[in-house]
Amino acid sequence: MWMSELAARSGLPVPTIKYYLREGLLHPGEAVGATRARYDDSHVRRLRLVRALTEIASLRLDDVRQVVAAIEDDDVSWHEAVGSAHTRITPVATGTADDAQDVRVDALLARHGWELDETSSHRAALAAALGSLDQLGHPVSEDTLDVYAGAAGQVAAHDVGAIAQGDRSEAVETAVVGTLLLEPVLLTLRRIAQENVSRRSRR
Amino acid sequence: MWMSELAARSGLPVPTIKYYLREGLLHPGEAVGATRARYDDSHVRRLRLVRALTEIASLRLDDVRQVVAAIEDDDVSWHEAVGSAHTRITPVATGTADDAQDVRVDALLARHGWELDETSSHRAALAAALGSLDQLGHPVSEDTLDVYAGAAGQVAAHDVGAIAQGDRSEAVETAVVGTLLLEPVLLTLRRIAQENVSRRSRR
Repeated sequence: MWMSELAARSGLPVPTIKYYLREGLLHPGEAVGATRARYDDSHVRRLRLVRALTEIASLRLDDVRQVVAAIEDDDVSWHEAVGSAHTRITPVATGTADDAQDVRVDALLARHGWELDETSSHRAALAAALGSLDQLGHPVSEDTLDVYAGAAGQVAAHDVGAIAQGDRSEAVETAVVGTLLLEPVLLTLRRIAQENVSRRSRR
Repeated sequence: MWMSELAARSGLPVPTIKYYLREGLLHPGEAVGATRARYDDSHVRRLRLVRALTEIASLRLDDVRQVVAAIEDDDVSWHEAVGSAHTRITPVATGTADDAQDVRVDALLARHGWELDETSSHRAALAAALGSLDQLGHPVSEDTLDVYAGAAGQVAAHDVGAIAQGDRSEAVETAVVGTLLLEPVLLTLRRIAQENVSRRSRR
């Protein structure tokens, strides 16, 4: 397909696509003469991924570039490529935590047999969320953390199992989009469940 | 205690407290002479609740007033008072859903034996979230919904069990604050769990 069709199918304007080509976020098409090139489905998929990473995951172009590099590098395993996107997603919670919260997070990870990459921002995010709750006078118990971690583990096992196993670009897109877009679904279901548990215990 | 101490202990400026008194969000203190009044711990607790509802839950004052009215009305059961706050929390997802999504949500609720109040915004919120995912080309399967609902149910049972059983004002505060502030904890734990499930299946 020509550039105009690529624009129509990806929903992106031609200048944006040309910018992604210059920045190396999109691989070149097959040259046809000096100024024209043909594109195929792999370009549509890549633009879909770049859109998901920038528009849904709000990643900076620098981070998108590194995710794309991991996908293209055959020395990087499929799971590492997916992980390179996962670890770059903006953390849910921000703030600063004291050492006590870090210790609690490490203990929680140990109880559930979990480890985290050095580059993962999620350890600090969790410690910060616990710190905020402490400061607001609503400390979270270890019991609560364990119930939440258990539920999160079930959801995550399903999430990772549902990632498309084939094409790397598609797998990364599914993983990132699934992680982010299913968050409101999980939170809304929790509220619906709370209403129902509460209703049943009404006296 | 005098107004100045109430301000110090609640962290709210005196003019704000006086405004809440005029608006009926805070019950009057015990009059001492024509212009002074004494306040007690119940006033500190109420201000804490009003702060939680306005600052953390972002409720409009009209809604705060109705939550407070439910707490003060002895004809309203403890669980209805808590529910009056729960149903007023802003929904997580917004958008419009078509009939197909409404049907799916109803089927999901039926499968899990859940019902929702007429006033609950969560049914529409869930249908809207499912509609968005469909439009983005990432439809959610019934299987995924069931896994998420199961996990949400476990978390919710724990949440409702953890609500302080005594004082209504405290119960509502715990319920609302717990619902909202534990959201980033749940989402962060899901991401940590995803990293770990993904790591284990690295090939």
